[in-house]
Amino acid sequence: MEMMRSISQLKQYIHRKKEQKLTIGFVPTMGYLHEGHMSLMEKATSQCDIVVLSIYVNPLQFGPNEDFDEYPRDMERDMQIARNMNVDVVFSPTTEEIYPNKIYTTVSVSNLTSRLCGASRPGHFDGVSTVVMKLLNIVEPHKAYFGQKDAQQVAVIKQMVTDLNMNVEIVPCPIIREKDGLALSSRNVYLDKAEREQAIKLFESLEQSERWIEEQNVTSFELEQLLYEHISSAHLANIDYIEVLSFPDMQPIENNIPISQLLSNHQVIIALAVKFGTTRLIDNRIYTGSLNTEKREPELGGMIYV
Amino acid sequence: MEMMRSISQLKQYIHRKKEQKLTIGFVPTMGYLHEGHMSLMEKATSQCDIVVLSIYVNPLQFGPNEDFDEYPRDMERDMQIARNMNVDVVFSPTTEEIYPNKIYTTVSVSNLTSRLCGASRPGHFDGVSTVVMKLLNIVEPHKAYFGQKDAQQVAVIKQMVTDLNMNVEIVPCPIIREKDGLALSSRNVYLDKAEREQAIKLFESLEQSERWIEEQNVTSFELEQLLYEHISSAHLANIDYIEVLSFPDMQPIENNIPISQLLSNHQVIIALAVKFGTTRLIDNRIYTGSLNTEKREPELGGMIYV
Repeated sequence: MEMMRSISQLKQYIHRKKEQKLTIGFVPTMGYLHEGHMSLMEKATSQCDIVVLSIYVNPLQFGPNEDFDEYPRDMERDMQIARNMNVDVVFSPTTEEIYPNKIYTTVSVSNLTSRLCGASRPGHFDGVSTVVMKLLNIVEPHKAYFGQKDAQQVAVIKQMVTDLNMNVEIVPCPIIREKDGLALSSRNVYLDKAEREQAIKLFESLEQSERWIEEQNVTSFELEQLLYEHISSAHLANIDYIEVLSFPDMQPIENNIPISQLLSNHQVIIALAVKFGTTRLIDNRIYTGSLNTEKREPELGGMIYV
Repeated sequence: MEMMRSISQLKQYIHRKKEQKLTIGFVPTMGYLHEGHMSLMEKATSQCDIVVLSIYVNPLQFGPNEDFDEYPRDMERDMQIARNMNVDVVFSPTTEEIYPNKIYTTVSVSNLTSRLCGASRPGHFDGVSTVVMKLLNIVEPHKAYFGQKDAQQVAVIKQMVTDLNMNVEIVPCPIIREKDGLALSSRNVYLDKAEREQAIKLFESLEQSERWIEEQNVTSFELEQLLYEHISSAHLANIDYIEVLSFPDMQPIENNIPISQLLSNHQVIIALAVKFGTTRLIDNRIYTGSLNTEKREPELGGMIYV
């Protein structure tokens, strides 16, 4: 496995591999790797000849009061994981390498970003789409792998790639969870014991949602109320948002028709963002088609369940 | 020469040519080709194995009260010119092909676009940078050729390519002029006889500027005044803007120091936009280094003079 910090070095490497007709898979991450990232690397190595993992905590996607400085980092451990997962190159550039000068160009995806994390983290998705564009131009992969836990991020990146005729296939991968259901996140390390115990409420509420939709025929409005009650019963939970939207366009749905009826024509996402102490967790579930038939994969999204 | 309307057809063609290790040159245009475009094609064919010319009038870069519908079109004549210039492919997509669905993604270059045409044509450069990004992703050229008449456009595209690590070299090409000095533009065809005669004032004022800078040691403020007086002596001229800015960042320069002194550290652009009737003409000149020594090419810009 090679570790590279320089864009030009990586580009030369990619150029050589493409000359050999090898396919390139790309897994962009902010490091502090967990099994969610490992599932991306696993899929990438199974589908591509060469896998590039990037580890870069991108300042552009953090707000002024967010956790950029505190974001967990452990390069040695990450390198070991990447090696174990048969990654070919770890690309870990400095910020001077990625932003050698002030950047004046922004890639923005409107509409999909007006709600959820787009609303609660202003500028976040511009930072994401701009750096992902840069990384995709540097690596020029055939396929790039993203975790479905950040469902809005995946939707934004897919929209960008389609709108701008970019030459890459975006591969969304299922959410990976702890045994008790907590979605894996590098930020979980921040949680203290009591917070960690209560964080399970997110997964529980998503599990409950299925029954509420299927058995109680709730509307999106009613479902949001039930989710709110369930999650706020955890006294450490500080709810950022609870939204039930159409997917992947992230727009409000009819709030006086049962969701179960809407599912014949729409995919629906339940998206949650909840703070425990200073730690902001997100989770989601996407419902496709009738819940009474065998669960299908969402059009954008890999498996829903773990 | 091949004519293509489909993105996938063009992509397959490019893929085959790249497999043969041929270099691709790209000349994006809105058609109604003139000798300015021809100079781009000539440079492209001299530097690249395969030259793709695109002809596409992009609605996204026209304002609601601009001349999108009236923009001159003559595909037959354009095809003949392209054939004569040894272009390999004319890519002339429909708007359904370029924008099959509503586009949510915008590429914006800030700072460089706050003045000149960026100020007088709101949204124009977002439309330009977004469509150029799309076209560059479709054609994936090694080099792309742009006319320096649209100096701000070239600066914006170069900034975008640098900021986003795009894999293309932007080649700016000198302004091509009529015998009397009028910069070539597809829009010149709109001018009636009286307007055409007075339109020469733009070039004249740029020519005069050299003397004003060199002999009268004018400041940017004084130069703008002199340009204003000269151009407005044409009674059909309706001035949109006259600006003297640093180049290529398009920012105001010290207005109480003679320009001739500033030239030791800065490139300076004189940029003009003037309407004659409904026809909006632009022109510019870039000054680099001392005017007393042999004129050098600006860092971004090919030759200054015709």
